[in-house]
Amino acid sequence: MTDKRTDLKAWDRIIIGIDPGTNVMGYGILGVRGRTPAMIAMGVIELHRTDSHYLRLRHIYDRVLSLVEGFLPDEMAIEAPFFGKNVQSMLKLGRAQGVAMAAALSRDIPIAEYEPRKIKQAITGSGAASKEQVREMLRRQLSIPADAIPPQLDSTDALGAALCHFYESQRPSVEKGCRSWKDFIAKNPDKVKGL
Amino acid sequence: MTDKRTDLKAWDRIIIGIDPGTNVMGYGILGVRGRTPAMIAMGVIELHRTDSHYLRLRHIYDRVLSLVEGFLPDEMAIEAPFFGKNVQSMLKLGRAQGVAMAAALSRDIPIAEYEPRKIKQAITGSGAASKEQVREMLRRQLSIPADAIPPQLDSTDALGAALCHFYESQRPSVEKGCRSWKDFIAKNPDKVKGL
Repeated sequence: MTDKRTDLKAWDRIIIGIDPGTNVMGYGILGVRGRTPAMIAMGVIELHRTDSHYLRLRHIYDRVLSLVEGFLPDEMAIEAPFFGKNVQSMLKLGRAQGVAMAAALSRDIPIAEYEPRKIKQAITGSGAASKEQVREMLRRQLSIPADAIPPQLDSTDALGAALCHFYESQRPSVEKGCRSWKDFIAKNPDKVKGL
Repeated sequence: MTDKRTDLKAWDRIIIGIDPGTNVMGYGILGVRGRTPAMIAMGVIELHRTDSHYLRLRHIYDRVLSLVEGFLPDEMAIEAPFFGKNVQSMLKLGRAQGVAMAAALSRDIPIAEYEPRKIKQAITGSGAASKEQVREMLRRQLSIPADAIPPQLDSTDALGAALCHFYESQRPSVEKGCRSWKDFIAKNPDKVKGL
């Protein structure tokens, strides 16, 4: 752990991406050095081994908290669908999101959420891209060796949420709260020429 | 706090009841001495003062955790509607429930959930009772002085969840997991005569 913490100091910023599900939860840890993002770790938390709803929630909380304590992220990005099949599944999904968020909130980590479409758009350029396309584009954009990517697409979805958040935070926009040109210039010195 | 902890030792069992909402969250602390339940504390956590969804979730987590640490309950009972107006509101409700549950799960406290109808049935004898009836019956069953009951019905709903859980745990049934007569006798020595 000491070694890992020393390594973590090499990053200017660490974003944890979470794709919360009720059967499998994906996670991806993205490190940023300067303006360059890189994958630090990614994987899944298997939840279908237990039938108990509470044990699953407990498992999500414990694992997300250990990721937060292990990688000390500055921000959390969550893939959050806003529409679902039915109210029952949305309640369960909301609970899974809630316990994952609680793990971040308990450590004062700010949370951002992105719809799946938004993440696909940010990573592949198309909101209708497949999960496989997202994985392939992540592999290329972050130069991840093929064997370092877990087979479960939940892990790439989670890393995609983290990378989407990174891109969003780099993008100047009204939503980001750039209220004036002065503010815009201060936040994006490299985008302004001839100053 | 030391005084409160000493007082808490007087109870054989403490149940925290939670009525999670996205605007107001109710709570009720029920103490049991022998077979007699009593109200220890009840109130609400106001959430509509902040517009930020995350700050609300954070607020729920912090407050539920401080109730858990303050009253050291053995169990948590949650009022949990399984049907809602739409998927959006169910997702929000699920998140509110999730962070409240995380506060309990982080302290190894088992959780039970009850539908509003079930709680009304347990307290008033009718699943169609009004919230006001639930409050009135709680007041009588637990001999709570009228001025000790907060005006918000969320607090009586929460205390109702805790009392419902207490009644359920007293009731011998297959659901409770009494698998044999030996088990039943062990769990309910006072219900068996002539041994």
